[in-house]
Amino acid sequence: MRGAVLYGPGDVRVEERDRPTLVEPTDAIIRVTAACVCGSDLWPFRGIDTSDQPQPMGHEYVGIVEEIGDAVENITVGDFVVGSFFASDNTCEICRAGYQSRCVHNVPMGMFGSQAEFLRVPLADGTLVATPGIPDPDLVPSLLAASDVLGTGWFGAVAAEAGPGKTVAVVGDGAVGLLAVLAAKQLGAQRIIAMSRHEPRQQLAREFGATDIVTERGDKGVARIKELTGGLGAHSVIEAVGTQESMMQAIRSTRPGGHVGYVGVAHGVELPGEELFFSAVHLHGGPAPVRRFLPELVQLIWDRTIEPGKVFDLELPLDQAVEAYQAMDERRAIKTLLRP
Amino acid sequence: MRGAVLYGPGDVRVEERDRPTLVEPTDAIIRVTAACVCGSDLWPFRGIDTSDQPQPMGHEYVGIVEEIGDAVENITVGDFVVGSFFASDNTCEICRAGYQSRCVHNVPMGMFGSQAEFLRVPLADGTLVATPGIPDPDLVPSLLAASDVLGTGWFGAVAAEAGPGKTVAVVGDGAVGLLAVLAAKQLGAQRIIAMSRHEPRQQLAREFGATDIVTERGDKGVARIKELTGGLGAHSVIEAVGTQESMMQAIRSTRPGGHVGYVGVAHGVELPGEELFFSAVHLHGGPAPVRRFLPELVQLIWDRTIEPGKVFDLELPLDQAVEAYQAMDERRAIKTLLRP
Repeated sequence: MRGAVLYGPGDVRVEERDRPTLVEPTDAIIRVTAACVCGSDLWPFRGIDTSDQPQPMGHEYVGIVEEIGDAVENITVGDFVVGSFFASDNTCEICRAGYQSRCVHNVPMGMFGSQAEFLRVPLADGTLVATPGIPDPDLVPSLLAASDVLGTGWFGAVAAEAGPGKTVAVVGDGAVGLLAVLAAKQLGAQRIIAMSRHEPRQQLAREFGATDIVTERGDKGVARIKELTGGLGAHSVIEAVGTQESMMQAIRSTRPGGHVGYVGVAHGVELPGEELFFSAVHLHGGPAPVRRFLPELVQLIWDRTIEPGKVFDLELPLDQAVEAYQAMDERRAIKTLLRP
Repeated sequence: MRGAVLYGPGDVRVEERDRPTLVEPTDAIIRVTAACVCGSDLWPFRGIDTSDQPQPMGHEYVGIVEEIGDAVENITVGDFVVGSFFASDNTCEICRAGYQSRCVHNVPMGMFGSQAEFLRVPLADGTLVATPGIPDPDLVPSLLAASDVLGTGWFGAVAAEAGPGKTVAVVGDGAVGLLAVLAAKQLGAQRIIAMSRHEPRQQLAREFGATDIVTERGDKGVARIKELTGGLGAHSVIEAVGTQESMMQAIRSTRPGGHVGYVGVAHGVELPGEELFFSAVHLHGGPAPVRRFLPELVQLIWDRTIEPGKVFDLELPLDQAVEAYQAMDERRAIKTLLRP
């Protein structure tokens, strides 16, 4: 089968890979209908995360179940399924508490590489959610978004306790940040401030529910958030970048007692203990337990209540994966969908 | 009046200071019945926090109201009162959300120095809580504990979401850590693990409700907590020290999705972003909004439901303040009560 493999910084190749087979009785094999490039795929593409081995790429996916192991009970061959970027049993104590990305048996899906024609999914019963039927083609991008960026933005909004009466600020205007805006809106937030200096992204943020746009960054961005919130800061701030600057911008934009939900994969971040202590904020985040939210998100998409698929502003055949990466790296595209 | 003043590392002197007077119409002047030395007073005493000015010392206090300003309505001359270590208006949006230590008009009480005969308390209506009557003398230590160490341990337990069905671990066996054990017990925690290697403190932890004692520290302490919790970590961990080691011990002892409540004043702490991200814990803490809890804590003490005053294992006249500091610094005393 064809699949994308990263050989080094900037060097993504689509080449022949072994077609995956069932290994464990709890596995499923899916034929990938659509995959995509994640903001976190750009770290190794840029050479910031490195590996001395060629790496199969991709951890977001939707597709049709092709084969199931003997122990799989909840899904069946022919189902259209969405899964998270961590396989999880969904039965352990950590999963039952809603932290499936830290399941005691978790498997990072990135190791299999979903930017490919077929994908092995371990712990299929706990990982995959079947849609009510085969989706109309226009629903596919939204269902694919649920696999990571929507689920991650949603978790950020939940971790930041976005809700009725709350002013929510979002740091980061990538797909996750934009979908955090959508999540905050769905969760009932009163006011949603998107921090973005890119006009097409500002536009999409407004479509998703942003009431205000702040173009300033860093300390100036913080000052602007304070200005908009009577000097106090936002109740809820979602951090969707993962850098030192964005984390401090998020913490400093939050009022004492407020909540920071951080979902940008931290790179080179060191939080100063004393400042954090006196900020008196709540801090929660990490790899989003997307599986917790998937049944609800799939339903909202199926009912056409939300359209997170709008974040895909570029669609390419899998064979053009390198352009998919470059377009996102150069911020020409918010997010690229790949068709195997 | 007589009051304690720090001149430099190890140099606490009890000397004649100006008796405070009403400055604002919202002020009260109290005659201090009892004050004490805080773990955080040891930072400047040890020369770790420095000042180029002599510093009046102390921020914990109970006493009798001596004078009130014209605008004071909720308390009256002759009341026995307890107050927090931050004065707060208790009416601003931040106070109403329960974060009085970060009140928009907050005043740190340490600047006035409660280790003295008299104390000026700004924002008296918002800061002070009157007891139902003049307390029996044996209640005074417990009421004094409510002013900081009990309120701080209680906030740590609330921030860590200690409660029914939860396994709670407490890092730090100072007065705050010990009273966090008491708080976790009152909040209904199922299992409470005190981390301590000092026998008299272990004993008090057990009296306050600890079900288990862990003597190991650092990585070994973490391993022991994991062992006691089926490999997962505690649901709730209270950090009551404020060092890099204790913060990392707390974070690593917490299961994914669990809660760290940190109340040790951070000194030289830098939290590694990537580890924090993948830990998936909740982190909340800071200067405890003691005022939020004071009415409830005063009642629990008045009813003799709890006896937090047990943390005072040394009582001295104010004039022996230097011995009070030394005894705590050398860990000969858990906490010292001072009688002006």
